[in-house]
Amino acid sequence: MASNRGVVYMGPGKVEVKNLDFPKLIDPRGNKADHGAILKIVTTNICGSDQHIYHGRFAAPVGMQLGHEMTGEVIEVGRDVQFIHVGDLCSVPFNVSCGRCRNCKERHTEVCMNVNPEVDCGAYGFNLGDWQGGQSEYLMVPYADWNLLKFPDKDQAMSKIRDLTLLSDILPTGFHGCIEARVGSGSTVYIAGAGPVGRCAAASARFLGASCIIVGDRNQERLDLVKKAGYEIVDTRKDTPVADQIEAILGEREVDSGVDCVGLEAHGYGREDGEEHSEAILNTLFEVVRAGGAMGIPGIYTDADPEAKTDMAKQGLLPLAFSKAWIKSPSLTAGQAPIMKYNRQLMMAILWDRMPYLSEVANTEIISLDQAPEAYRIFSDGSPKKFVIDPHGSVKQAA
Amino acid sequence: MASNRGVVYMGPGKVEVKNLDFPKLIDPRGNKADHGAILKIVTTNICGSDQHIYHGRFAAPVGMQLGHEMTGEVIEVGRDVQFIHVGDLCSVPFNVSCGRCRNCKERHTEVCMNVNPEVDCGAYGFNLGDWQGGQSEYLMVPYADWNLLKFPDKDQAMSKIRDLTLLSDILPTGFHGCIEARVGSGSTVYIAGAGPVGRCAAASARFLGASCIIVGDRNQERLDLVKKAGYEIVDTRKDTPVADQIEAILGEREVDSGVDCVGLEAHGYGREDGEEHSEAILNTLFEVVRAGGAMGIPGIYTDADPEAKTDMAKQGLLPLAFSKAWIKSPSLTAGQAPIMKYNRQLMMAILWDRMPYLSEVANTEIISLDQAPEAYRIFSDGSPKKFVIDPHGSVKQAA
Amino acid sequence: MASNRGVVYMGPGKVEVKNLDFPKLIDPRGNKADHGAILKIVTTNICGSDQHIYHGRFAAPVGMQLGHEMTGEVIEVGRDVQFIHVGDLCSVPFNVSCGRCRNCKERHTEVCMNVNPEVDCGAYGFNLGDWQGGQSEYLMVPYADWNLLKFPDKDQAMSKIRDLTLLSDILPTGFHGCIEARVGSGSTVYIAGAGPVGRCAAASARFLGASCIIVGDRNQERLDLVKKAGYEIVDTRKDTPVADQIEAILGEREVDSGVDCVGLEAHGYGREDGEEHSEAILNTLFEVVRAGGAMGIPGIYTDADPEAKTDMAKQGLLPLAFSKAWIKSPSLTAGQAPIMKYNRQLMMAILWDRMPYLSEVANTEIISLDQAPEAYRIFSDGSPKKFVIDPHGSVKQAA
Amino acid sequence: MASNRGVVYMGPGKVEVKNLDFPKLIDPRGNKADHGAILKIVTTNICGSDQHIYHGRFAAPVGMQLGHEMTGEVIEVGRDVQFIHVGDLCSVPFNVSCGRCRNCKERHTEVCMNVNPEVDCGAYGFNLGDWQGGQSEYLMVPYADWNLLKFPDKDQAMSKIRDLTLLSDILPTGFHGCIEARVGSGSTVYIAGAGPVGRCAAASARFLGASCIIVGDRNQERLDLVKKAGYEIVDTRKDTPVADQIEAILGEREVDSGVDCVGLEAHGYGREDGEEHSEAILNTLFEVVRAGGAMGIPGIYTDADPEAKTDMAKQGLLPLAFSKAWIKSPSLTAGQAPIMKYNRQLMMAILWDRMPYLSEVANTEIISLDQAPEAYRIFSDGSPKKFVIDPHGSVKQAA
Repeated sequence: MASNRGVVYMGPGKVEVKNLDFPKLIDPRGNKADHGAILKIVTTNICGSDQHIYHGRFAAPVGMQLGHEMTGEVIEVGRDVQFIHVGDLCSVPFNVSCGRCRNCKERHTEVCMNVNPEVDCGAYGFNLGDWQGGQSEYLMVPYADWNLLKFPDKDQAMSKIRDLTLLSDILPTGFHGCIEARVGSGSTVYIAGAGPVGRCAAASARFLGASCIIVGDRNQERLDLVKKAGYEIVDTRKDTPVADQIEAILGEREVDSGVDCVGLEAHGYGREDGEEHSEAILNTLFEVVRAGGAMGIPGIYTDADPEAKTDMAKQGLLPLAFSKAWIKSPSLTAGQAPIMKYNRQLMMAILWDRMPYLSEVANTEIISLDQAPEAYRIFSDGSPKKFVIDPHGSVKQAA
Repeated sequence: MASNRGVVYMGPGKVEVKNLDFPKLIDPRGNKADHGAILKIVTTNICGSDQHIYHGRFAAPVGMQLGHEMTGEVIEVGRDVQFIHVGDLCSVPFNVSCGRCRNCKERHTEVCMNVNPEVDCGAYGFNLGDWQGGQSEYLMVPYADWNLLKFPDKDQAMSKIRDLTLLSDILPTGFHGCIEARVGSGSTVYIAGAGPVGRCAAASARFLGASCIIVGDRNQERLDLVKKAGYEIVDTRKDTPVADQIEAILGEREVDSGVDCVGLEAHGYGREDGEEHSEAILNTLFEVVRAGGAMGIPGIYTDADPEAKTDMAKQGLLPLAFSKAWIKSPSLTAGQAPIMKYNRQLMMAILWDRMPYLSEVANTEIISLDQAPEAYRIFSDGSPKKFVIDPHGSVKQAA
Repeated sequence: MASNRGVVYMGPGKVEVKNLDFPKLIDPRGNKADHGAILKIVTTNICGSDQHIYHGRFAAPVGMQLGHEMTGEVIEVGRDVQFIHVGDLCSVPFNVSCGRCRNCKERHTEVCMNVNPEVDCGAYGFNLGDWQGGQSEYLMVPYADWNLLKFPDKDQAMSKIRDLTLLSDILPTGFHGCIEARVGSGSTVYIAGAGPVGRCAAASARFLGASCIIVGDRNQERLDLVKKAGYEIVDTRKDTPVADQIEAILGEREVDSGVDCVGLEAHGYGREDGEEHSEAILNTLFEVVRAGGAMGIPGIYTDADPEAKTDMAKQGLLPLAFSKAWIKSPSLTAGQAPIMKYNRQLMMAILWDRMPYLSEVANTEIISLDQAPEAYRIFSDGSPKKFVIDPHGSVKQAA
Repeated sequence: MASNRGVVYMGPGKVEVKNLDFPKLIDPRGNKADHGAILKIVTTNICGSDQHIYHGRFAAPVGMQLGHEMTGEVIEVGRDVQFIHVGDLCSVPFNVSCGRCRNCKERHTEVCMNVNPEVDCGAYGFNLGDWQGGQSEYLMVPYADWNLLKFPDKDQAMSKIRDLTLLSDILPTGFHGCIEARVGSGSTVYIAGAGPVGRCAAASARFLGASCIIVGDRNQERLDLVKKAGYEIVDTRKDTPVADQIEAILGEREVDSGVDCVGLEAHGYGREDGEEHSEAILNTLFEVVRAGGAMGIPGIYTDADPEAKTDMAKQGLLPLAFSKAWIKSPSLTAGQAPIMKYNRQLMMAILWDRMPYLSEVANTEIISLDQAPEAYRIFSDGSPKKFVIDPHGSVKQAA
């Protein structure tokens, strides 16, 4: 049990599976972490934000262990852990949070003030506090009583693991994007991006009662998947402006809510010139979200982008159509999702079969740890799959 | 009673008091407006947004009658008006709204869908639906049952008219900015701008229970007024960055809430080069509002700006530090205030003397209609006054 | 077209279809109602609250015309009506509201201050402001621009009329009960009552993302219907306490949210003695809703009950387990639903097929006007049907 | 330092100061509490809910140590406490909570699921989990990182300690009552009870921007205090109904919000017969709160009342005018305040001098520990004082 292996970032376009130290109850600053637990990983997904790192767009040190979407079984707990026990099967929110600072108390676990000395935000497998990534066999989770979401029944959970594995990040992230965009009963919604987060946002919008749900992308396979699952689509490769495409679907040029599930690596949007236009999604949302509507921006933007294309981008600036939109009373909320605010509720919905449409759009594929580097490549090429690493073969065994 | 006079826009830098037609129960499209009422104006204020027009920064036709902050006595009602009566003393929300469309029903009267054929937004004395301005002796108010806020007692109201006259716009506008910035009990707040809206935002923040309230401006007289009234100040002419100035006051470099009461005509902010930097306020807020905090942007931005300084500005674009701020989960809401959502409540607070600190920062000066052009000029030069036109001498008489 | 027929209350247990005057644009106080419209009724449903009247439990004058759940086509509009036109097919919220008072402006149309001189609440076909009931061929709707919800496409609407007819009352009412009970993503819910409102509450809970949805009733046919449609059931005839029955389903004795869709005519709940126990539902909810949970009480209670069984009941008092529940931080909201707050959104959900499960639980049966008295009797006997009167045969014709 | 003394309940009407064990980092179940801290108490207040115990109305074992409103300096921390340090001056929320259960994560610390094996609610000095009371020299606070609110500056805090000592309970409790009653800008409010919580509710209503704030009581001294501090009063000894008294003040018979700061020991309310009428406050609120308004019920009700006067009361039942009020859409929330949801914000307001009116209504009197039994007696007799025990003479010394 003392061995461990995991996915390591070796520079832009390169990840490798390497031998790693077995995790200890020690935090990245070298302090004893009696509040922590060690998990044997059951599933650990590859995320679009891993791709930003893989593309060299979100600065990370070579040698950093990747992965932040983990589900696992507790095999050891620190002495300060009271309510989580060895044997519990748990979902790990990708945000690392302490449960003791002002922001955590106010349910803003995505901007915890205690887990990263550099900025009020911590995450596993990112350059955000040096918390070890979890695309590996084992992982240390700090503040385990606070952070871990225990599944009530292990067998039941294993039987729904393809959906439950999404609780660590992309389902609550898509859901949060919808919540911040004020998607609710009867809303009309435009979701930018048909990647895994965009597809989870589409399912979340449906779960939240949205009426017309439109997903935009430039990847045919992803559009086909989304269309087949019962959502409307906009093809952003086309010259036809998004508003015109929306009008053809809805009879109106504007929607109530807009969700950005793309972030800074945007292409297309009427300028299919092969170039990236980082501002394209936001400016499209400013245009197609109606007066008094709202936008949620879980898609990642950063000024820590070594590959920023323009002088403005290097300073973390974007040319935004804010002045033009002002008369429409625009409202937007950006940033990472505070997973803990949503994961228990979404778990309940999955356990009671209230999102029967989730699996189809999630489109997960279970792979081994050794297949991870290949999956990074395929995903980068625009695969409509969501890759889920099963490092111990637990899912295969359960099935 | 059939005569009428009012302030008319004659081009950038020029306003004149002219003879006008007496208002009729007819809407700007020439239809009978039996839902309307005619008011004898008691007070009508000059606003910072009138200044944007005066400066040629918010496109308006020469000959347009100005004014959107009116309080008056009803002298005639259309036959479909049931609950407002001749003799009622009322505040007029600056937004024109129908009370019958989806947005009005959802309390978004600032983006009414029925009162302006060009955009979902109407206002008196603006290029927004051709509703006659109210810096005049008389005014027609459409949908009077919906739009007018009746004061419960006329004598009581006249005795508090200097505060109550602010209900038509700037007090609810400053308040809305605070609400959208989630100012509440104990909040720390940075308010950009010590003009009348900024000062009303400061009083609103206090009313909402904010703890540390900091107002930034580059006009010494306005800063002095605000300081004397008990608020903290930041001098944006200084080279010392705003965050440093905040830290000197609060012991922290960030506040919970930021309110932009300046808009596109921003100067200063560490670049006191005589040039306008329209993005300066927003980018400062992105920097000084803490993770998980919020911003309210009542300050006006527009792409209908004939004097826009840059190519980007001409397209309604601003270079915003959004990518840099994303990690902090920024949240912002912009646009005009839906006055009706707040005016009754703020009226109650004034009538029960719960904002004793309002008058001092409002710093109103009552003037005659003929003094209006001079007041436009003085206000443009940075006066710390809020000018209130008393076209019939009613306030003077009551006092 | 000048003839009209409708359902009239002739005393407890008696309703008759009678000839009626053709509606005019006149309000119950005899004033001209230029704000109103005349509708040719397309569907008009029989409601559980009609049953309270029918049972003599909600005081009403003999001769009162019944009905408050109408959908119809506009055949005439008053001169103050601007945005609703002849030919529009519309849903009528059962609450009569003015759209001009404080409560309407605050979206509390269920307690409009202007439409009933006796109490701040008006409704069609009730002893609440003398507004003519709508189980008839034609109806006058006041403040038509405000009150009517226009369907965007008539043919589309007629093809979904069995669901859309529920928008005038029971779907938004069940939904409102859920909203006030804070039903949301993942909630566990107990709904008291499997009548039409209870069944719409169950569908609403599902629509709102609830996980475990439990419906309690004592009528076998209704329980069978609900069970078959995929909800959990509690049989309140049983001696087994409701909390025990919930525990058997959920593994916990308490739910997050409780909704009372029964009201004062409660029977059963462990005391199947043939007697009514008006407090039974509320006290059950106090017991089975968890600490920090919430309750919505759309079920009708009143002190205008000529058949009140106890001295306390005659005074509008109930023996409630409030002291016992206090430690659990109970929260409840009672009263009629403000239909307008929800009907557009729910219409959108229906038009986009987002409530495919609604029809099954609604279990509507289309009948003619002349079948109404028989339907009142069958419904009173506990039928699991929702009866929808089709006074002009329009639905049959469309099908 | 190993000695300790504190106030002990010796049966109805009897409290004594006794020698006690010095607190250890051990929880009431005998487990090591490395998450805890030991505090040297600086101030510890006597509360109205201590009075319910003192009156034998809230069951408690003889020998129980009293006190739940503590402020103190940390003198020892367990090895799992990371962010609270020896020397920190802190306010202790009266609710004991774990910071790790679902309810704590949802900010419902008043119904923590882990700190009391009998019911989801823990508190110091109550029969709620056996946590030692804090009217003593020293106290153990569990989950110190979670529970303690550190004051930023000790000297500043000591200079405002008379206000800050209210943060452990009555100020947030009164504030919570207002929040649940939806008191906000311009609200009209009726507060039942001019005891310390009622007076803090009055100050909170003012802080929240209420317009007309009316406090009802039957104790002349308390009414005089409240009146002098600028609030309106209702004398509940009078035969004149409360609604009539409200109308004389406000011109309307109803208010927007009602707050019950009395609970089960209510007297008066038009029946000044010397008898208790536990339902009197709630039924008055049902009458005087307007349609669509709301009620907050921090006043204590319980079924653990050995002195319950009626058979109904013994079962935790009250005869409530719910049926009568139903048509007005009543909304109420009862229970203990989750102090942690409010205490930081209110601390900020106090530190920035935003509640200058608090001290006058709080009317604190600093006493020694040995004076506590006498203070219990005087308070029970209706004193308008709020007694604050200064067990080490720290306040006197600081002054």
